[in-house]
Amino acid sequence: MSQSIKVFAPATVANVVCGFDVLGFAVHSPGDEVVLRLSDKPGVNIIKIDGDEGRLPTNPEKNTVGISVIKFLEKIGSTQGIEIELYKKMPLGSGLGSSSASTVAGVFAINELMGGPLSKEELLPFAMEGERLACGSAHADNVAPALFGGFVLVRSYNPLDIIKLPSPKGLYCTLIHPHIEVQTKDARNILPKQIDLQDAVEQWGNVAGLISGLYQSDYSLISRSLKDVIVEPVRSVLIPGFHQVKNAALDVGALGGGISGSGPSIFVLSTNEDIANKAAKAMEKEFLKLGIGNDTYISQINPKGPVVIG
Amino acid sequence: MSQSIKVFAPATVANVVCGFDVLGFAVHSPGDEVVLRLSDKPGVNIIKIDGDEGRLPTNPEKNTVGISVIKFLEKIGSTQGIEIELYKKMPLGSGLGSSSASTVAGVFAINELMGGPLSKEELLPFAMEGERLACGSAHADNVAPALFGGFVLVRSYNPLDIIKLPSPKGLYCTLIHPHIEVQTKDARNILPKQIDLQDAVEQWGNVAGLISGLYQSDYSLISRSLKDVIVEPVRSVLIPGFHQVKNAALDVGALGGGISGSGPSIFVLSTNEDIANKAAKAMEKEFLKLGIGNDTYISQINPKGPVVIG
Repeated sequence: MSQSIKVFAPATVANVVCGFDVLGFAVHSPGDEVVLRLSDKPGVNIIKIDGDEGRLPTNPEKNTVGISVIKFLEKIGSTQGIEIELYKKMPLGSGLGSSSASTVAGVFAINELMGGPLSKEELLPFAMEGERLACGSAHADNVAPALFGGFVLVRSYNPLDIIKLPSPKGLYCTLIHPHIEVQTKDARNILPKQIDLQDAVEQWGNVAGLISGLYQSDYSLISRSLKDVIVEPVRSVLIPGFHQVKNAALDVGALGGGISGSGPSIFVLSTNEDIANKAAKAMEKEFLKLGIGNDTYISQINPKGPVVIG
Repeated sequence: MSQSIKVFAPATVANVVCGFDVLGFAVHSPGDEVVLRLSDKPGVNIIKIDGDEGRLPTNPEKNTVGISVIKFLEKIGSTQGIEIELYKKMPLGSGLGSSSASTVAGVFAINELMGGPLSKEELLPFAMEGERLACGSAHADNVAPALFGGFVLVRSYNPLDIIKLPSPKGLYCTLIHPHIEVQTKDARNILPKQIDLQDAVEQWGNVAGLISGLYQSDYSLISRSLKDVIVEPVRSVLIPGFHQVKNAALDVGALGGGISGSGPSIFVLSTNEDIANKAAKAMEKEFLKLGIGNDTYISQINPKGPVVIG
């Protein structure tokens, strides 16, 4: 058993266009890093948080990483003391699954550090405990892709049913994080409770098309299916310039895209790195026209999830 | 060019559980047969309809097969006289895609008879014209699987986007047609205009799971995904004994199922012929308890659609 471990876990895009609340995927960049160290001091202690501008709680019971590690140790019946260092390398509240990345890095790290007693499937509930702390409910649509990598379907919560989907090899994701704030609560409250059956049918036709496109590596079908007639029309009003930004990416050849998570970040998918780069530049430009600073990230779909980096 | 041709086209299950209005598949039995014959008499003439109890119009402009053949000949600029004989081998108004089977048999037959100028993809609009006559709108969810075979996704109508899906080889379908009548109009009118967003999310999670299950030949996933929280709860009230009948099939090992089309027929899927047979017997028994006579049909998924049989 090594004395310490450093793990990277990736950002994720949840609510993939038509797949609201059921579909997410992982990217290579950005992501968070967590260091876990065996300690003679009993209990789980967070000794450092870097890059959060002081916004995250250092009380391990109130920190998504801390609580996941505590629950994990309870589960395996260990009283091992653990020191945690958390390196936030991605923006908080961005719609990129920031808390999930940290949490998944934490549960993956503690499992590795303790000799790997649990499978990834068994780790998922601990990561979801972290999400409960962060969001008030035990969502899986960020933690599942962060943990398993690739595209992941959360078919059902009760019982929990996670399906790993194939990711076409050539697919690139461009993410843009505008420097504005959208409260997850507002993004949730703006949703209608009821929708037209006709819209729902259109939506699940597109969900079916998107899943089929992923299995077939059919980029045209993926592109045709990346339409959201229910959530995007409502939530996009919270993101100034949303339509111009998205259309700028489509104009340079992106397959399609939408709001990442509950925003404000926007993602688009492309068939190669060149288009993904052009899409990033085009989207940057549109936000800058509105005076909105931003960061962009370009990467392939991350097929692995968390990795040990030290 | 042969002088006459006889074509079989299959019954189809539309509205496959969670895939309301977007997903259908073809079976081997039952189905309809059409004979088309070159004639010196100009125009398209229906000279015989068998098995419809006098319910179908013999005026070719008002008959789904007749109108499809007329439109086909117009399209290819032919004035060839055609005689049509229609053999209905399946019940009308049963939810088994009776009019689609006849129409698809007709358009496939006329295309073969005229030397095959059009592809199946090009034939679809002519078959949809027949559906417009039968249902008042140009649906594709029965004609597309009847024409292409297998499982078919109608992702979108505008523009029309038909996706052929894989069918796991071992899959069997049991169909039961109870001798009661459900008006398509009633089945349509009973549907809510608005539904809960939460139900819609559950539904498209299941649609995504079902599509994934078909690609993976994952019978357990198919079974878990064969749930309809939106249409079945409403429409099943039109079919006496629906839940007992369906549950009887599940109890003997069927994967799942639901209303075929807009009913009153019910279908279930099974992983082998033995279970499919047991499901048929179990469902028959439940309907008979209620004094409802019925016919059952058992077959694998039909991967081909129409075939020339003479």
